[in-house]
Amino acid sequence: MTSYAVVPVGLVVSGRTELIEDHWEREVATLQLDEGVVGADATVGLADFSHAEIVFGFHLSTQARTTLAHPRGNEAWPLVGVLSGRGPHRPNHLGVTVCRLLEVDGLRVTVRGLDAIVGSPIFDVKPYSPELLPRGEVHGPPWITELMRDYYD
Amino acid sequence: MTSYAVVPVGLVVSGRTELIEDHWEREVATLQLDEGVVGADATVGLADFSHAEIVFGFHLSTQARTTLAHPRGNEAWPLVGVLSGRGPHRPNHLGVTVCRLLEVDGLRVTVRGLDAIVGSPIFDVKPYSPELLPRGEVHGPPWITELMRDYYD
Repeated sequence: MTSYAVVPVGLVVSGRTELIEDHWEREVATLQLDEGVVGADATVGLADFSHAEIVFGFHLSTQARTTLAHPRGNEAWPLVGVLSGRGPHRPNHLGVTVCRLLEVDGLRVTVRGLDAIVGSPIFDVKPYSPELLPRGEVHGPPWITELMRDYYD
Repeated sequence: MTSYAVVPVGLVVSGRTELIEDHWEREVATLQLDEGVVGADATVGLADFSHAEIVFGFHLSTQARTTLAHPRGNEAWPLVGVLSGRGPHRPNHLGVTVCRLLEVDGLRVTVRGLDAIVGSPIFDVKPYSPELLPRGEVHGPPWITELMRDYYD
């Protein structure tokens, strides 16, 4: 299929620098947005929201798996397809995370709980509000509950 | 900044065909994934989740606004920046929506509540589970509550 070009709207400029899988809610990250891409007023009104949804790139991941694998290589968990997990080795290497907004200072946005390391390209920032919460009861299999036990905390 | 290439992992092949802004939860959409991109086993295990998060392209939107605007042009709502709303005329034209999974039949995935029309490119499908719900109390300004009143229903 035709490919599309995406341009970073900004970068993660401070926060975690090491690839550690868990404990992201302890991390405060700052995103520096690029005025040349988004314009100077891009975040006007954003601070009225408690949370923002960040679309970013797993820029250190260069491969996408196309075969079954155990999440995090843990054989206690089932073999699943690449689109049945949220790991970085996926087509297009995109991550999506809803984060608490701590500060919006022009094009500098500070968030808590973004699972992206310093240097990660940001492809979008969207406001998040209660109306966007999933409709209907949400459930997943036991392995994701176990995997996520320490992810945010 | 350097641009990145993203390749559709699939397309919306059935569902809404007209650009109507509201009432998306009434819509059932089918995504046909591309085996050449994701592999034949990409969705193994996905049916164990109640919901999936879909990253898609607003492919009919060719412009990104860089100035302030009233959401949906409604002057009763404040002037906000492009990253303070979720409209399609945004950098990279990416949409992100959590949808109910109705059926996973190999690389054909049927969902409820995807706000993308037929022909939209899909850039990622991720499983969604309760552990991904936002941490902390979620709130937004009154205008988003009004704007979203009929969005899902």
